[in-house]
Amino acid sequence: MTRLSRVRFSKSPAALRAQWSKAVPVKDLQKIIDHDNHEMRASFREFLKQDTFRPKYAITLAEERQLALDRLQMVCSNDFLSVRDFATNPHRIFAAHELMAMIDPATTTKMTVQFNLFGGTVFRLGTERHHHLLDGIDNLTDIGCFGLTEVGFGNNAVEMETTAVYNKKDDTITINCPSELSHKYWITNGALHAQHCVVFAQLNVDGEEHGVHAILVPIREGVAGEPLEGCTINDMGHRMGLNGVDNALLSFKNVKVPRTNLLNKYSDIDESGKFHSAIKSKRGRFLSVADQLLSGRICIAAMSQGGAKAALSVAVRYAITRLTVGPAGKSDFPIMKYQLQQRAIAPLLARTVSLGIALDDVKDEWFKINSENIEDKVRVMNMVTACCVIKPLCSWNLERTASIARERCGGAGYLSCSRFGTMIGLAHAAMTAEGDNSVLMNKVAKEQLGLFIPRKVVVPEFDLKSNNFIHALMEANEVNKFAALGGAMMRAGKGAIFETWSLLNQDLVQAAAHAYGERIVSESMINAISKNPAASEVLDAIFKLHAVNTIQNNLSDLILSGLISVDNAQAVREEFNSLAATVSELSPDICESFGIPEELLSAPIARDWHAFNQHDNRGEVQPGVF
Amino acid sequence: MTRLSRVRFSKSPAALRAQWSKAVPVKDLQKIIDHDNHEMRASFREFLKQDTFRPKYAITLAEERQLALDRLQMVCSNDFLSVRDFATNPHRIFAAHELMAMIDPATTTKMTVQFNLFGGTVFRLGTERHHHLLDGIDNLTDIGCFGLTEVGFGNNAVEMETTAVYNKKDDTITINCPSELSHKYWITNGALHAQHCVVFAQLNVDGEEHGVHAILVPIREGVAGEPLEGCTINDMGHRMGLNGVDNALLSFKNVKVPRTNLLNKYSDIDESGKFHSAIKSKRGRFLSVADQLLSGRICIAAMSQGGAKAALSVAVRYAITRLTVGPAGKSDFPIMKYQLQQRAIAPLLARTVSLGIALDDVKDEWFKINSENIEDKVRVMNMVTACCVIKPLCSWNLERTASIARERCGGAGYLSCSRFGTMIGLAHAAMTAEGDNSVLMNKVAKEQLGLFIPRKVVVPEFDLKSNNFIHALMEANEVNKFAALGGAMMRAGKGAIFETWSLLNQDLVQAAAHAYGERIVSESMINAISKNPAASEVLDAIFKLHAVNTIQNNLSDLILSGLISVDNAQAVREEFNSLAATVSELSPDICESFGIPEELLSAPIARDWHAFNQHDNRGEVQPGVF
Repeated sequence: MTRLSRVRFSKSPAALRAQWSKAVPVKDLQKIIDHDNHEMRASFREFLKQDTFRPKYAITLAEERQLALDRLQMVCSNDFLSVRDFATNPHRIFAAHELMAMIDPATTTKMTVQFNLFGGTVFRLGTERHHHLLDGIDNLTDIGCFGLTEVGFGNNAVEMETTAVYNKKDDTITINCPSELSHKYWITNGALHAQHCVVFAQLNVDGEEHGVHAILVPIREGVAGEPLEGCTINDMGHRMGLNGVDNALLSFKNVKVPRTNLLNKYSDIDESGKFHSAIKSKRGRFLSVADQLLSGRICIAAMSQGGAKAALSVAVRYAITRLTVGPAGKSDFPIMKYQLQQRAIAPLLARTVSLGIALDDVKDEWFKINSENIEDKVRVMNMVTACCVIKPLCSWNLERTASIARERCGGAGYLSCSRFGTMIGLAHAAMTAEGDNSVLMNKVAKEQLGLFIPRKVVVPEFDLKSNNFIHALMEANEVNKFAALGGAMMRAGKGAIFETWSLLNQDLVQAAAHAYGERIVSESMINAISKNPAASEVLDAIFKLHAVNTIQNNLSDLILSGLISVDNAQAVREEFNSLAATVSELSPDICESFGIPEELLSAPIARDWHAFNQHDNRGEVQPGVF
Repeated sequence: MTRLSRVRFSKSPAALRAQWSKAVPVKDLQKIIDHDNHEMRASFREFLKQDTFRPKYAITLAEERQLALDRLQMVCSNDFLSVRDFATNPHRIFAAHELMAMIDPATTTKMTVQFNLFGGTVFRLGTERHHHLLDGIDNLTDIGCFGLTEVGFGNNAVEMETTAVYNKKDDTITINCPSELSHKYWITNGALHAQHCVVFAQLNVDGEEHGVHAILVPIREGVAGEPLEGCTINDMGHRMGLNGVDNALLSFKNVKVPRTNLLNKYSDIDESGKFHSAIKSKRGRFLSVADQLLSGRICIAAMSQGGAKAALSVAVRYAITRLTVGPAGKSDFPIMKYQLQQRAIAPLLARTVSLGIALDDVKDEWFKINSENIEDKVRVMNMVTACCVIKPLCSWNLERTASIARERCGGAGYLSCSRFGTMIGLAHAAMTAEGDNSVLMNKVAKEQLGLFIPRKVVVPEFDLKSNNFIHALMEANEVNKFAALGGAMMRAGKGAIFETWSLLNQDLVQAAAHAYGERIVSESMINAISKNPAASEVLDAIFKLHAVNTIQNNLSDLILSGLISVDNAQAVREEFNSLAATVSELSPDICESFGIPEELLSAPIARDWHAFNQHDNRGEVQPGVF
């Protein structure tokens, strides 16, 4: 026995990792994958190494929430981001979301509500008279929440019931929640910390309904203070994940605020009590006040990417140091060499990198259109649908990545300190926050169908090694889906729109939106490959595996639509297996290019897990153990 | 607004549920789905309604573990099951697992280790001299754990390093863990409560190695007492789910026990110090001592079914009471009527029922072979592979069911009190406990390939409405996969077995095992339909949706192997959609036939969630609220 153990002892995790291939230009790849704000990212990574950010698991709900507030305060006290960055460098805000989600998605969730939903709304829907709050938003002396969702209107907010009635005689606005279904629901930061709430309500001036508007309402006497008169705040309690986040059910009874608390960038009530609006339709006004949801989707996509990169780094680092039965029947073979492991992990890694590069293009276009006030309707709508499709794709990918990576790490992956539980919790929050993924896919399909121009895509000869073929295939699939969907809607006619869309063709609706999403991801990757010769080889391998995996997952569809012949389809399996093996060999380098310090990975199985198991660790990662 | 809210007020969850179709003979269906021990199930359901079993969420790790022990003590004090049931009525034990997992899978996990892994091993591998423990196992005065897995040998236990050396001079056995990788790992009940451990170790008598044997070792002075001399017990701490379970890393240094602590049903050391065994090969001895893992897989499959039934009942009850945008744009349309919801939930419901009925056949066959000592090698091996395939299928199904049901409930599903988080935690534990699912599928494929007789299955004309066609298709697919796998292994030859199996054809290995699993599920369902005329209609609809869904998920494969033509494949989508709509209409009745009392569902969204949100609930379900 001693001999056996000696052999295995010499194979420490570090030694095993050192043996692995080094075939990727890691620094070049990291520069591409990080995309922007490289210096800020480097210093933020250093900052997050501090012990304050070290995850703790067996703690109470109260401790977990306080810890999240303390961590957010630390970030805000160190000037890593400002709500004003939305006007100058929003990528900085998105980068902070991605990096902090790697180690603490709960604090990141409080941050996204403070800086994007609350802060961003005050900054972009408010005017001078509200901007005195911006410094307090940045340094966290003014904590806020975002009161949009109501119990009964989670997916039909434009129908919300909360009312904001203007009172001419004392020049105030009165906020009321008339029914239990109109209580504001899932309001992050509401249960404990928010002093302010941007309340969305049906505005009524002089007995006339003007649609949903946003009003700034004080709700609490300072952080953790008592609710103000007329505000009922119920703590929603324990969640299946990210319990550092404090969610509330808020309700308002005759809460009076000054007229000037109306966020009046587009609509206003003047001193004489008259309502004016730059936007005609009530629906248009709702969309303008809910505009922050668009950057919110980018923030959540960025968090999902951070979570997926961390989960994959943990799984790959474990898989190359975890030995099991090899050819000789001894436990001397890294599980990463098993095809079972490779087929499970490599495609998730390839998809995660591909989605990240597509997300960066979405960030760029969102910023360009906002900063240059581009009004080209088609271009704007394409940017909107890109934001609406990238959040679902990234959060669904995180759910599959964290769940499958957990499973492939076996029991060891089940320990909270292995991080997968946290990332599964993040994934589920991300999949239904800022718009239920599948509902968003309906919006994507609807808007893209509106822009759709029927056309024939010429697909070159079948060749899984050709990016031209792969991309043409993706585009042709997208065109087919929208042509079929358009045809179905045309045949249905006006009277049957709801039934045809929501009751009879929902699979086609979802498939069309997915096909659109996969096409833009493919575009971004092919573009990135050609733009980055230094890392084009590894990017090409990553893209091909991602694409062939996508083709494999849609193979029956591609055969039925005639885009791939039965004979050619036979080649997909082997190509997928060989690409999975190639990318698996590169996977430790690819994960290294995510640039996640060991302190941020945190998981013992990603580090020296032999040493971790040698002391009574209680499942907690103590400083100085590694 | 008032009018709107009044309308909605009248539509209380109860009123909306009452409006739903009642087309299923619920009582008949429940009798079939419950399968056995109907009286015990009825009284156990009543028993579990007690407040002690009401889930609590915002509690400390220590409270959660104590609660699990208290609940298990309550079950044991009320004679619902006995370790002796394995000889007379094991279905009773399996039923207890399924029902308790609906409300508390953590306590159920402690129970499965106490009664199956620990108790069952003492009962079946031990002899008279050990059976004095059986009463203490039943009434929980003797709590035990199961020391098989080692840090370095999670998936290669036969290579474990812990040693048990017989000392002739004082007629004792000394237990040692020679290396850090040989520490016993993930030992449930070990961190706090177990006084006894069945330790698996390499037995050495007179300097001769005899392979892995099981030895009874006292490890602790009474419940929550101090470790005994030579036993190191490290608490593994917080897990991503089921934190009522206390897991330990155990290690032994020169721990001496009497020779008679060897569980000696098959192997023994006689008084003169000679080793005898009824089993020749070391591998055979390992399999015999690890035999309890087989019933353990049935227990975990039963728990997974309990979790899936509960998750689906919660999701369906919410979906028929949750209103959203209808044809008129108002929030007056139950989400269960949406095709998006139907396509997501109905196939999971159909698969859950189908897997449950297949699992019952596995239980029957396992018991028949054990109680009648049937030795027909082929029949025994088919039973073994059925146990090894049903655990993966049921636990994977729970993972998909809990995760997708959570997503389809939106934010409301994210609250811990909605139960999905608990069930996702159970699913992940179940997927890698008692054998990693994908590793078990390798065993299934290996054993079934050994039994495989190449043959041609005649598939009748394509007809998705014909169970004969469906079943022939499943069988033909299974035969194709094993023929292909067998061919690959034959061509590879002896020298390349490992490479061909584990590095080059793992997708085929997994597909073959899956095809086998789907075929036996199909067999069980077709059999159940013909045996139960009273509920044959609903069972047939359930089976057809499950089968067409399975066909859809494997469609490209079925086309490539020539079992379905491209033309015929076009019909699958429409058939799936129409079956999903049919089963969705029946889904409230089908869930009712699971017979889960509201107290066991617990989730407010499955009950009167309007009322729940009217008081400051803190996310906890208080007694008397409903």
